[in-house]
Amino acid sequence: MAGEQDAEVSAEADIGQVAHACDVEESARQELLRLRASIDNLDAALVHLLAERFKYTQAVGHLKAVHKLPPADRLRENAQIMRLRKLAEDAHLDPAFAEKFLNFIIEEVIRNHKEIAQEQQSRQ
Amino acid sequence: MAGEQDAEVSAEADIGQVAHACDVEESARQELLRLRASIDNLDAALVHLLAERFKYTQAVGHLKAVHKLPPADRLRENAQIMRLRKLAEDAHLDPAFAEKFLNFIIEEVIRNHKEIAQEQQSRQ
Repeated sequence: MAGEQDAEVSAEADIGQVAHACDVEESARQELLRLRASIDNLDAALVHLLAERFKYTQAVGHLKAVHKLPPADRLRENAQIMRLRKLAEDAHLDPAFAEKFLNFIIEEVIRNHKEIAQEQQSRQ
Repeated sequence: MAGEQDAEVSAEADIGQVAHACDVEESARQELLRLRASIDNLDAALVHLLAERFKYTQAVGHLKAVHKLPPADRLRENAQIMRLRKLAEDAHLDPAFAEKFLNFIIEEVIRNHKEIAQEQQSRQ
């Protein structure tokens, strides 16, 4: 009888542990969903800011094409990199990543500027 | 005398044209500065949003490390890409660029998740 009771207590403890593990898993899953919802909101904001940024760089591209200025401007790019690295540090973002991010964007912008310059030339 | 007068008139016209060209150049330079100031403001906003985004993905990284979940989640990534492409289209941003941008960010996030998982393992 004592053995049977021990087995029952042990089985209850096992069920308790499994139930606890399920609760932990469920709470982790909920936390993951919560974090991902915030990431999705930030991504929507990022995409809208990028759309706005490309409107301005497109205007810069047209201005450069009309005035026959080169698509890239190293002096300006270096100043932007230094500024963004400083801003990233203050915001606790890896400055190396901020620099990589800006280079990624600038690469796309210069590609766009070259396209605009070519369009402008083919019109003349 | 008539020849001299013609030359004077022509010289005045030349000066007028140069002055006009200078005005155009100056106004283009002012416009470029104005556009760049807006780009700088948007970049500051982008860096701060990215800093916030990495706070959330770092929390996801810890959660995944504790619960031994894989650093990458292709199903989630595909859903994010589809969503951002749609948002980009609505905001008149090239959807292909939005996808490239998200992949660029995810690459960094997965690198961070792997680092967090390794730290977690070395602690055990």
